[in-house]
Order: sequence, then C-alpha cells, then structure tokens
Amino acid sequence: MVTSISLIIAEASLETVPRQLASHPTVKNQAQKLGRSPGEILLDKSYHHPAMLRAGLDLYWKRGRPDIIHFALMEALSTPLFVKNMLKVYIHTVKNKLIVIGENLRIPKSYFRFEGVMINLFKEKVIKSTDGNNMLLELHDNITFEQFILNGIRPDKLIGLSSDGVKSSAEEIVSRNITKNNDHIAFVVGGFPKGHFSHDTNKLFSCSYSIGELKLEAHVVIARILYECEKLLDLHHYQVNSK
Amino acid sequence: MVTSISLIIAEASLETVPRQLASHPTVKNQAQKLGRSPGEILLDKSYHHPAMLRAGLDLYWKRGRPDIIHFALMEALSTPLFVKNMLKVYIHTVKNKLIVIGENLRIPKSYFRFEGVMINLFKEKVIKSTDGNNMLLELHDNITFEQFILNGIRPDKLIGLSSDGVKSSAEEIVSRNITKNNDHIAFVVGGFPKGHFSHDTNKLFSCSYSIGELKLEAHVVIARILYECEKLLDLHHYQVNSK
Repeated sequence: MVTSISLIIAEASLETVPRQLASHPTVKNQAQKLGRSPGEILLDKSYHHPAMLRAGLDLYWKRGRPDIIHFALMEALSTPLFVKNMLKVYIHTVKNKLIVIGENLRIPKSYFRFEGVMINLFKEKVIKSTDGNNMLLELHDNITFEQFILNGIRPDKLIGLSSDGVKSSAEEIVSRNITKNNDHIAFVVGGFPKGHFSHDTNKLFSCSYSIGELKLEAHVVIARILYECEKLLDLHHYQVNSK
Repeated sequence: MVTSISLIIAEASLETVPRQLASHPTVKNQAQKLGRSPGEILLDKSYHHPAMLRAGLDLYWKRGRPDIIHFALMEALSTPLFVKNMLKVYIHTVKNKLIVIGENLRIPKSYFRFEGVMINLFKEKVIKSTDGNNMLLELHDNITFEQFILNGIRPDKLIGLSSDGVKSSAEEIVSRNITKNNDHIAFVVGGFPKGHFSHDTNKLFSCSYSIGELKLEAHVVIARILYECEKLLDLHHYQVNSK
C-alpha cells in the first residue's frame, strides 16, 4: 500500500474584493491599474487596508493576504514530493471556497503573474493547460471545511499544524503519523497571518502539533513537514530495495 | 567555539533598470505607475522582457528576477536560525553589488512592499530602523564576489550549492561541514533562474554539492540546508546539556 499525502492550506486569506468595498478609492484605483473591474481583483491588505478597516469586515485579521498563499503554495509546489505526484495540494479559503491544485502545476514566482492567475481562477472557476487537456486549477464555491474533509478527501488522519498544538518536531510528527497502516494523511497549515484555527476547523483534527519553540510562518512549516515526508519515504524506498 | 553560519545569495538577479532600457515604453509605463523615475525601478522580466530582449543585455538569462530574491530572502529570514541571530545573510548581485542584511530584519511578504524597500535601498544605499539606531539593509557598490569573500567575510569553508556539484543530501552536507573545528561556514546559493555559477564564483568554493536528484529552486535549497543546520546545532546543544 502506498502512503498518500495531502496538504491543505486552510482558512486561507485569499478572496476577491467583497461587494461593500468595491467603491472605495483604493480598490477602484488598483482595479483601474490592473485593467479589471473592482469586484474581480484580489483583496489585499497592502492596498486596501483603509477600506477594510472602514467596512468593518468580519474576521478582519484573517483576510486580504494573498501574499501568504503565494508563498505557501510556491513552497509546496517546488518540492520533489509534489513534482513526483506524491502530494495533493488544496486551498480552503476563509470564505468557504475550495481550490484544487492540478498535478504538475507550476505557479509563477512573480506576484504580478500569480495575481493574474488567481483573478482568472475566481472569475472562470477553472484554469486548464493551453492544450485544454489538463486541469491546472479548479475553484468550488460554498464548501465548508467539514464538507471538504468528511465528504470530499476523507483522510485517515487529519493532522493540524498550529502554534497551540502539542509541541513536537517535524521529524517526529511525520515518523509517528506516516506508517504502513495509514493510506491517506492530510496535513493542515493555516493560510492566515495570525491567530489560530477556528473551532470548526480544529474539531476535525485527529491531532494538532506545534513544531519548534518559535511561531513559524506557514511556508516554513510546509517546507519542513514536506521535507521530512520525503526523507521518510526515501528511507522506506531504500529499505524495500535493500531487502 | 561557536560555529558561525553565513548564507550568500550569489549572482543575484536583482538590480535597477539599466540606463539603456530607461526609455522603453514598458519601463516608462511601470515607473509612472509606481511614481518613480525609470532608472529607480527594479529590472523585472515580468514587465520588461521585450525591452531586455531588444537591448541585448549581457548575461540576459541571469537578470530581471527580483521575485527569486524575494522568495530566497523570505525563506532565510523566516528561519529560527536567523531570528535567533545565528545566521548572517548576504546578497551579492550579478552586477557586483553587495547587500548586507541586518540582524532581525523582517522583509515584507507583499511583493509590492518588498519592491518599495529595494528601490529605496538602491537609491539611499542604507535603510535604518525608524528610531535610526539599527542598520536594516546596507548596499555597497563595485565589490566583486572574490573581494567580498577573500577580503570581506573570509569564511573557513565556502560551500557552493549547485546542481552540477557532488551529489549529496542537505543532512550530509551540514553534518560533514559544520564541525567543532570550523568557526565560520558560508553556504552559497544561486539567486538566478537557470544555468550555473560563473567560473569567478565557482573557483572560490571549498567544495560544491547538489542536493537531491531533481534541480531545486534556490528557496527550497535554502529551506533544507538551514533546517538541517538548526537540527545539528540543537543536537550539539542537547549533547552539551546532557553531559
């Protein structure tokens, strides 16, 4: 049996500008620069902070950080684990949208190009390869995290990575949870700048761990967990071959 | 003796727009959007590709990728090793400029803000903390990589990380090279999208390694090497304490 590994970037701070902010000057100004309508562009605290404050958005501190998702996604998609199709990657947003990442997707490192891809995805709901044969990115609306986990990917273990989890190390977490008895392990990393997972996310975890004594950025946690997964899987491979 | 570790992002694809490109429409247009003069903005292939092609820039394939430097720098500066002041970070650019990263520097994840910081650095040569007491970033002109290594930081070992180096693993490289006999190890990672280090860089390496069978992005190599350094130093710490 082959171990299957998923990474979920959860409560991800990625969305288009909400309707109530569309007429704010910072939004209109940026939409014009990008040649888009205000409702199409990504909510971004770097530009829309005054508009977000004024509108009193709910969950304000978890919103408008597409840069965090860009880094987290780039980290995961640059690993040999992903390149060799041994990792599935999903983004579940703070506004209950699910983004499914296609096999072999390469996202642009240039934020300008990443932004363009995401704006198109939110508009078209799907992005295919230029020959039209492969799904690169797919967006589904109105799916709660619980629906995605329990009715969607249904992993054998759902491992939360959070600074309020049980103190451990990336190496220990991976070696303890990826065993021959489990066929599908999903790791969950928060795609937001501060605070913790909501109760609705937390309650679904089989267990929750914190790696390291310092709070780590999402992309650092992703880099370390996936690297340890690769090391463990290489080791298994080596043991099989050396018999 | 405490092991001292440096990371150098070398031949870094980071510079302001060269004079011969300043009048190209893509450059003027972007400078206007940013409210800067054309010679102040960063050369960026995402915007200036046609201008770069037309001008026939030398070392074309190693230039205009500030996004690569943003990712590489973010990766290094997000590690506990850096946060705990156990790592010095330098950028040496393809155009012989040296950027010294101050202790505890936090660079913005938002590319828009990162770009602003870098534009200011190239213009002012130094960026200090708001109270004026700490150097955050410092830029020095006209220093070759050789001058920087031999007359500047003078490490005991200079370890190149390159896909044409000796095949090894991040763990092996770190455990083999960070020993009690060495007081200063500098790792060198390329800050460019493809190709190899130039002869002038290569000739200074004590040794050169490749990690993994696939070519890895600079930020992935940085993440893995620094993580293994942390693991090794924690181990040393543990051994000292348990005596």
